[in-house]
Order: sequence, then structure tokens, then C-alpha cells
Amino acid sequence: MGLIVAKFGGSSVADAASVLRVAKRIVDTKNSGNEVVVIVSAMGDTTDELLDLAREVSPNPPGRELDMLLTAGERISMAVLAMAISDLGYEARSYTGSQAGLITDSEHGKARIVDVTPGRIKEALSEGAIPIIAGFQGVARDTKDITTLGRGGSDLTAVAIAAALDADVCEIYTDVDGIFSADPRIAPKARQVPRITYDEMMELAAAGAKVLHLRCVEYAKRFDMPIHVRSSFSDKEGTFVIADLADQSKIEKLSKQGAVMEQPIIAGVAHDLGDAKITIVGVPDKPGTAAAIFQAVADAGINMDMIVQNVSAHGETATDVTFTAPRADAAKAEAALRSVQKEIGFKDIDTDENIAKISLVGAGMRSHPGVTATFFKAIASVGVNAEMISTSEIRISVVTRAQDANAAVAAVHTAFGLDADGEAVVYGGTGR
Amino acid sequence: MGLIVAKFGGSSVADAASVLRVAKRIVDTKNSGNEVVVIVSAMGDTTDELLDLAREVSPNPPGRELDMLLTAGERISMAVLAMAISDLGYEARSYTGSQAGLITDSEHGKARIVDVTPGRIKEALSEGAIPIIAGFQGVARDTKDITTLGRGGSDLTAVAIAAALDADVCEIYTDVDGIFSADPRIAPKARQVPRITYDEMMELAAAGAKVLHLRCVEYAKRFDMPIHVRSSFSDKEGTFVIADLADQSKIEKLSKQGAVMEQPIIAGVAHDLGDAKITIVGVPDKPGTAAAIFQAVADAGINMDMIVQNVSAHGETATDVTFTAPRADAAKAEAALRSVQKEIGFKDIDTDENIAKISLVGAGMRSHPGVTATFFKAIASVGVNAEMISTSEIRISVVTRAQDANAAVAAVHTAFGLDADGEAVVYGGTGR
Repeated sequence: MGLIVAKFGGSSVADAASVLRVAKRIVDTKNSGNEVVVIVSAMGDTTDELLDLAREVSPNPPGRELDMLLTAGERISMAVLAMAISDLGYEARSYTGSQAGLITDSEHGKARIVDVTPGRIKEALSEGAIPIIAGFQGVARDTKDITTLGRGGSDLTAVAIAAALDADVCEIYTDVDGIFSADPRIAPKARQVPRITYDEMMELAAAGAKVLHLRCVEYAKRFDMPIHVRSSFSDKEGTFVIADLADQSKIEKLSKQGAVMEQPIIAGVAHDLGDAKITIVGVPDKPGTAAAIFQAVADAGINMDMIVQNVSAHGETATDVTFTAPRADAAKAEAALRSVQKEIGFKDIDTDENIAKISLVGAGMRSHPGVTATFFKAIASVGVNAEMISTSEIRISVVTRAQDANAAVAAVHTAFGLDADGEAVVYGGTGR
Repeated sequence: MGLIVAKFGGSSVADAASVLRVAKRIVDTKNSGNEVVVIVSAMGDTTDELLDLAREVSPNPPGRELDMLLTAGERISMAVLAMAISDLGYEARSYTGSQAGLITDSEHGKARIVDVTPGRIKEALSEGAIPIIAGFQGVARDTKDITTLGRGGSDLTAVAIAAALDADVCEIYTDVDGIFSADPRIAPKARQVPRITYDEMMELAAAGAKVLHLRCVEYAKRFDMPIHVRSSFSDKEGTFVIADLADQSKIEKLSKQGAVMEQPIIAGVAHDLGDAKITIVGVPDKPGTAAAIFQAVADAGINMDMIVQNVSAHGETATDVTFTAPRADAAKAEAALRSVQKEIGFKDIDTDENIAKISLVGAGMRSHPGVTATFFKAIASVGVNAEMISTSEIRISVVTRAQDANAAVAAVHTAFGLDADGEAVVYGGTGR
């Protein structure tokens, strides 16, 4: 096929037996006539164990040193994987992020990639070796210090290296078969999606789907690098993340199941139980007030997700402002707001941690105006109330009570014909 | 005092509590008005655990990958130590061997230092930070691959960095108070030696003393870098390893106990239970035969230590050749010799693993001809027979039965007045 970049996560290399299985898989890919570049995460719980160790010596370790510590994790997994491959008779060479040319800014713990210069990786490939690259890590352009890329960093490394090498595909190996139309633990009839667009995948990731991280998909979209999300436990095709589901030539090149199908309207249903809803009650309704609120929250380093402003009964000159943010940041957000309460002049803060966010994502909803109505009919049919609503061109999200999440996901999943028994329906005109 | 390079071994940083103690100690040194550069080994059993992991995936891992794996150990300890120091209010920055400018050849697992370019360390010092450097590791000049220095590598790193920075002293922290006149587990009356020369220390290290490795002392001698071996559990002065015990100005600069004392004749007694004795029986007595034997052993990668050739009763044209080598290599040595038996024409090989090597080391024996006689009288007085004898200008070594080692060490220790109760005697003319 050509050049494949394959990324294996921590659960795929959790112990020696898993490492040997992954090594075998890499050698099989190589034996099928491909060049292979491997990206690997730290083994199993290594990163958590290193974090525990850090906490034992310091409540607030410097970012530079935390990055130095955590990068030991991939160093171990990549060297061990290279040994296992070498034992199968192939030369494998491990490279740190720095050695592989992953150049970043110097924001420790959440560095951004500023350049990729994989000279040593190209050299290894030209000499017939299999390069094994540490995921999640790079080196800062200015300080030359070791950095980590933050959450989803190994997937991001894989896509960035794939783009820099002009690979044919970036394979992300995981412990599930691919991207699902909903979380199978909540919607037992969820089915694997064979293809999905970058845009849909980004919306799903932002809406709480855990398989791929937003940054990695953004990067893949920018460089039009196809991602193949698949299981490290089976040979089955997984999910291809590509630019355009109508691009038949690309699909035929990537997938053995390259049959022509109508583009589905809906990619999937996502849910997120990790947010809290914070309502600022009795906000004076005058210019600049909202800005002051959002600035206070941003200054505390908190990402707001959905934001609504409700006209309320506090009189004509006051409204309520509600937003969602990660539940772990709720107390910090409330403290930040309390510190500007006098200055802004709002009445109170109400934090509700008992919420869920349910999102429907699909590029097809652009041209199918009935989708919104079907969505709300579905949640109403199981008695679920939408407390906040937010939409994009290809996504509808609502906030519900946390205990309503499962029922809402299942109802929406069924209403859009996504259930596995009704799979064929998906590729039609469900959007009435 | 000036610039101190301080090295802490794995037992000094075995867990979080130890790391915090070491951090405190480093800060104390800094607060006494010194600049400090720290070298650290991997925590406790980390290296052994990583080796176990490697063995689980490959019986014979490539050296390049083994080095990549093992260097994760110091990466963890140095980052954690830097965090602990930072928590005490000082800036500490960790550096890998590569970042610290430890340039080596590309002999993985036993790389030799070819250059030291500590630019980033000097920069950190000039900015008031405490550099924490990974011991045991470097980067190969040609391949840019990560290397390890082999046994004693962290001590060697410390001395090499100290020399490159022109430090005032290289402190080696360990779990004993310094260099002892014998192993205290065998000779309970062994006492700590306040000073010892590089030459004596090298002979002791070669003779089996475990505290400092030969390579590190050789390096220190070449650059005349004073080493201070001391306990990480107490503030007591340990043992200074220097060029010349008569150099009063140097001693006064280094030691608070800088009083003038007569130079001792004997530095200490060492023993080594790790060797085997291999006798090649009936070797034809003609030119080139010994060379062929030693070549065969050397080709098998085995270091011979003592070598003697005994005139024997096998007739005028044959002799016995005996040498000692590490017990772990005995079987390999025998196999190498068997493969050339026909060609060389010797009769048999006799391997004896039940031996000990006892050595007496002291620069003073050069000028005290009675030392040898006292030594042999001492071992004879406890009924110990010397099976092989080897001497250098400042060392006498004998091979005895393994079970005689303790008695021989104790007798020699007492005979030369090294016992703790008779300490004063040492600095006199015991060499009658």
C-alpha cells in the first residue's frame, strides 16, 4: 500500500504480552509490502504512576520537570517495542520526540507543535529499519527543553509525523473497533461507523466522544491526512476519518470495502457527563457586563463550552447568564466569579453538577431541515427536558439532567435509524 | 567554598522520602555559599526492573534499545529530585546526559566518554539554577544515539562533569561513611580512612573494593579532580581521594580536619570473592604457547586478572598456567580454551570456583620493605595458604581458599595496626 504510520495507545502495550502482540502486528504490516512508522504511548498505567510519584515529592511540580518525568514513560515503551520487533528479525529503532524532529513551543504540559523535521526517521526508513517514535512529546524550539503535548498528544504526534512524511494513512490502534454511532455502553445497539468526515469527527470529539481527540482531527483536516481508527485486537477494518465521504477514489484506495454508498445524514450521538452548569443570577443588563464575566472565567484558565443568556423575571434591567464548563473547574469558576461579584453587580451564582450534554452530529443535517424536529421529538418521547440548547451547522447539543442521559441517547439513536438492526435506514432520508 | 559536583546513588534516592532528604541536603550545600551541580542515578531498583522488562520481551535485546530503555531510570529520578528542590524554593533544572554534553563513542552498554561540553550546565549555573544531571548516560558523537557508560557510570559522569566545570571537589554520596580499611562486614574493626591517593584507590577498586569504580578514579587522577566519598545519611566528613597525601595546601582547602599527619603506609585490605581460578595443565613449554592461550581467552571477551606460570612435574617440556577471571565467565573461558586444546596441545583444564583474592594496598609499601613479610606472617598465623601471589608497587594480592577469606582479612588488618582501637599506630612505622 505504501507508507503507514501506526499509533498504539497505552492499553495496546500494557504488558510484555501485549508488546509482543503489537510487534507481531507491525511485522505483519511490513510483510504486506508497506513501510511502517510506529508511534507509541506509555505502557498501561505508567503515566499515572509517574504522576503519583511527582505528587509524593511536590504538590505543585514545575512544568519543565513534570514533562521530563512523564516522557520517561514512552521512552520505556518504545525501547521495549523495538526489542520485541528486533526479536522477530526486523531492525527497529526507537526515537524520542526530540530525535524524531517534533518541535514545539515551550508551553510545558500542553505544548503546540511548531515544526516537524523527521530527518532521522526518513534515514531509518531508507535503511529498511522500522522507526518507533515516542508519542506525546517534543522539544521546545527556543529553550531546547523537553515538552509534552497534553491530552491526546500521542494521536497528535501520529498525525503530525504522518503529515510530515506524506504517509498514505495514519492508523490509530485502540481497544474498540472504531468510531461508534454512540457509546455502546449506553446505547447497546450502537454500530461502528465505516467512514466519517473530519468535521463530524471534530464535533463528536468536542461533544464528548473519547476515541479521538479534537486536536488530532483538526491537524489531520489541515493536512488532509486520512485517519484509520481500528482495533489492535482484530484485523477488521475500523473507521476511516476523511475529508469527503463522496470522494470515491480516496475511499477505494484506503478501504477494501470501498463500495459506493449514499452519504449518511447522521454520524453519531455523543454524550458528556463531565460538565457542570453555572448560572449567574441577576446580571445587570448593560453593555460590557457579559464581557467582564467571561473575562473573569477565562483569566482563571477555564474553558467554557455552551453559553446562553436567558431573559428572566428579575426585572427589566437584569438577566441570567448560564454556561457549562468542566466539572473539575466548577469551584474555581465560582471563586473567580465571586471575586468580581461586587464590581459586576450580579445577585448570585448557582452551580449544578448534575447535568449531561447530549449531541447529535452529522454533516447531512445541513441539507435536511427536519433533523432538529426529529431530535426534540425523540427526547420528548422519553420525557427528557432540554435545559440548554446549542447548535452548529452540523451539530445539535442539549443539556439535560444527568440521569436522563442514557434514555436520551438511546431515543435519539433509534429515531435516526442508527440502531444496528436498522443499519440500512441510515443511508437514506431519515431527516424528515 | 566554590563549585561542588555532588553525586547521589540509587540507594540515596530510593523513594520519595529519600528524594526529599537529598533535596534538603543539596539546598543546605547551596545555602553554605556554594554553587552545586548534582548527578543522580536511577531510583533504587529501577534499573533492575527495566532489565527484567527487557528480558520479558527479548532474550537478547539490541544494545541501542537497551540503552534507550535504561536511561529512562535517571530521567525519572532527576526530574523528581528537581521537583523536590523546587518545592524548597530553589530553581532546579534536570538535564539528560545528552543535554549536559556527555559525548561518548557508540559502544552501547559500555560507552567511553570522548568529550564533555557542558554549555547548558554553565548557563544554568550563571542563572542561579541548580543543574541536576542524569548519571550513567551520554550521546554517541557519530550516531547521535543514546548510550550508557556501563558499571560505575554515574560516578564516572560526576567526575567527568566536575573536571569539565573545573569544580573544587566531586562529592560521591553513598550509604557508608567513606572508604574503609577493609570491608566492615568481614573486619568489624575496620576504620574509615580519612584520605587516600588515586593510585591506592585504583588498586583497592581493582582488588574488589566496591565503593568507587576503577574507571571513575582513573578519570579523577587524569584531571586531578579531588573526590570526597561520604554518607548521604550524616554530615560527617568522609574520605578524600587525592593525588598526594603530603599536599597540605590541598588537604586544608578540602577538609575541616586539615591537620598535618604522617602519611600512612597502608590504605586498606580488600577482598574479592567473585573470581574463579583456571589452571591449564601440561602446557608445552615453547615460545608462543602462552600467547595462544591468552589470545583465546581474550577473544572470548574475558578479562584475566592474576596470571602465574608454575614450573611443574609434568616433565621438562611442559608447565601449568593458572589465571583468575570473573566466576561468571569461567565456563566461557573453559569453552574457549577447549576449542584450541588440540592446536596448543595442553593436557587438561582445571577450574576452581572456591577461591578468594586478598589484597593489601598502600603507597607507603614502596619505601617499607618489611611489608611483604608482615603480610605473609599474618596469613600464616591463621593457617591460611597462599595459592597464587601477585604484586604491584603498592599492592600485594594472594589467592586463598574462599572459606579462609574472613580470617585472612582480619589477620592482615590487625597485623598492620589498622584496627580501630589501634588507629594511631597506622601513621607510624608498622612496616617492620
